[in-house]
Amino acid sequence: MMELPRRNSRQITVGKVVIGGNAPVSVQSMCNTDTRDVQATLAQIHTLAARGCEIIRLAVPDMAAADALAPITEASPIPVIADIHFDHRLALAAIRNHAAAIRLNPGNLTDKDAIKQVAELAVETNTPIRVGANGGSVRANLLKELRTKLPPDEAMAEALVQSALHECSLLENFGVTQMKVALKSSSVPVTLAAYRKFADRTDHPLHIGITEAGTFYRGIIKSAVGIGALLSQGIGDTLRVSLTADPAEEVTAGIRILEALGLRDAAPQLVSCPTCGRTEIDLIGLADRVEKLVDELKSSGKKINLAKVAVMGCAVNGPGEARDADLGIAGSKSGQILVFAKGKVLGAFEEEPGFAFFKDELLKHCEG
Amino acid sequence: MMELPRRNSRQITVGKVVIGGNAPVSVQSMCNTDTRDVQATLAQIHTLAARGCEIIRLAVPDMAAADALAPITEASPIPVIADIHFDHRLALAAIRNHAAAIRLNPGNLTDKDAIKQVAELAVETNTPIRVGANGGSVRANLLKELRTKLPPDEAMAEALVQSALHECSLLENFGVTQMKVALKSSSVPVTLAAYRKFADRTDHPLHIGITEAGTFYRGIIKSAVGIGALLSQGIGDTLRVSLTADPAEEVTAGIRILEALGLRDAAPQLVSCPTCGRTEIDLIGLADRVEKLVDELKSSGKKINLAKVAVMGCAVNGPGEARDADLGIAGSKSGQILVFAKGKVLGAFEEEPGFAFFKDELLKHCEG
Repeated sequence: MMELPRRNSRQITVGKVVIGGNAPVSVQSMCNTDTRDVQATLAQIHTLAARGCEIIRLAVPDMAAADALAPITEASPIPVIADIHFDHRLALAAIRNHAAAIRLNPGNLTDKDAIKQVAELAVETNTPIRVGANGGSVRANLLKELRTKLPPDEAMAEALVQSALHECSLLENFGVTQMKVALKSSSVPVTLAAYRKFADRTDHPLHIGITEAGTFYRGIIKSAVGIGALLSQGIGDTLRVSLTADPAEEVTAGIRILEALGLRDAAPQLVSCPTCGRTEIDLIGLADRVEKLVDELKSSGKKINLAKVAVMGCAVNGPGEARDADLGIAGSKSGQILVFAKGKVLGAFEEEPGFAFFKDELLKHCEG
Repeated sequence: MMELPRRNSRQITVGKVVIGGNAPVSVQSMCNTDTRDVQATLAQIHTLAARGCEIIRLAVPDMAAADALAPITEASPIPVIADIHFDHRLALAAIRNHAAAIRLNPGNLTDKDAIKQVAELAVETNTPIRVGANGGSVRANLLKELRTKLPPDEAMAEALVQSALHECSLLENFGVTQMKVALKSSSVPVTLAAYRKFADRTDHPLHIGITEAGTFYRGIIKSAVGIGALLSQGIGDTLRVSLTADPAEEVTAGIRILEALGLRDAAPQLVSCPTCGRTEIDLIGLADRVEKLVDELKSSGKKINLAKVAVMGCAVNGPGEARDADLGIAGSKSGQILVFAKGKVLGAFEEEPGFAFFKDELLKHCEG
């Protein structure tokens, strides 16, 4: 797969996960359990980790939640980031309870002495800090001042950048080097502008995403557009898709975005053509069936040694258009099915025997 | 909304739709009916147009389909593009039957004399031509030659560009000026590379999309990533999301991609925060309910004069984080709901009265 350019960012580690430099882009999510409920939170972490989540963030709204981090971080299969707002004492407690990293919001944690205490403990314990600015909590006076000079959206992008840069420099003055930065807005153009500016000015690794992206469908599109646009320009070292939906959907969407850009191995790549006037079979049903078969084989631990599998609507264009597919299935005369490999037709069948033949061919290339 | 840069492309018109220059990016789809079935095809065109489709493409695999274009183009509420492969006589018939534009595939229509005939009739009738190259039908010898010099994916991107450039220059030699170009691949990185190269070398307006993007879920993510990345760099004048799914889904996905980038008015913008440990209400259900209410009002023809509506999970951060929302609803203590506007709380309610109050506030800003 063609390699995208990558911004040359500084490398940090969060628990066992390497972020930045040329490390693979990692996928994060956030639990929606009450962090104080250790059992429920650990159960959700396990579910998300099984889905492919590599780093998990937990809300830490009070000291009881910070205390719950001790048993959670001990048992979690993936690094836990503590999400801190307003109160630096929660950050101190989270670090003492072995959070793999903490997230500070520069919009609501600005007291220098408080930041100094957190920074010193972070350095002592080698705990990275995510500086997580977002549009909703940018300081009102900063935004107001910038709005006298810039149009509202540009002012917001600049406010996110300045807010994060200020927090980073405070932390750096107190000796912190392990940092990553997020600059999220619910507007994709504002988010893109903020990350592009920040990426030009520093080498901090970047956590990317669109905040408050919305419900499942709108949120997935908004996140794929925004995260995809940044990654396609080499910006972004770790990501979270924020959805008002089950966090497991955030993980799957994040993985699919990386797969789409060739930043995550997606073998076999599944391609299928749109339905059109030439289609004489139930193409949608066939494509769904092939996708399900592949997903089942992969989630049962099998490795499929094929780069590309194609599902095509018609015999005229199918095998030719998909001649680079290692294995393919195409509609032929009403109800009939062609199975092909590298542009060569292996046989023509009625639907069920055709699917069975296709499955057998696919299984020949499975291991594990 | 912050404006993205736009590539300065040449402007053409397809029927009544202006493409290129600074015209709005238009949304296309393709019927999956048998074009020869005039009634079924027109019914689907009407459904797609009601969904927001602005240009429709039809498969024209044989002369009967080309003949069917006459009654279809006469009755269609949106411009019809005839999709032609292999046989230039189908292109001639389509133009005579008033197709608003024709699509030629440079990979399977290369005979100079055939192209000359089509070009001359297109010029005479002022019919624009889409040069639609795609990865599956790039000529084998061109690809083979480029693969001796370049890695496989770069060779494919370059083959798409050269194939389209060659066809464009042939058409230009025969006097055609009204052209748009597509260079689709099922690989997002290859597609991005091809469009970026082509955009640098010409001012032809571009039809963008990812071909054979796949099933509903994977296809939407792949298309949002690829189309979004191009549009975020100003590339793309009209688009089609190709899905192995109901074409109506292609239209909605295309519109949502444009909305995400601020290229289509999406008022009111709906934002909702992800669920997290601070959430004490059924946030997913509430967000879905608000989205449904807004969609129903809009599809009943009402205009909602609010820029931003927010659905937030918690009372602590909700009204503050979403203080730029013109109207919002947030979870408060278990089951309770806050309604707020511009950061100010309008009232706290039990769930049902709260939603009713929110709806009344929303209706105050509706017209039509």
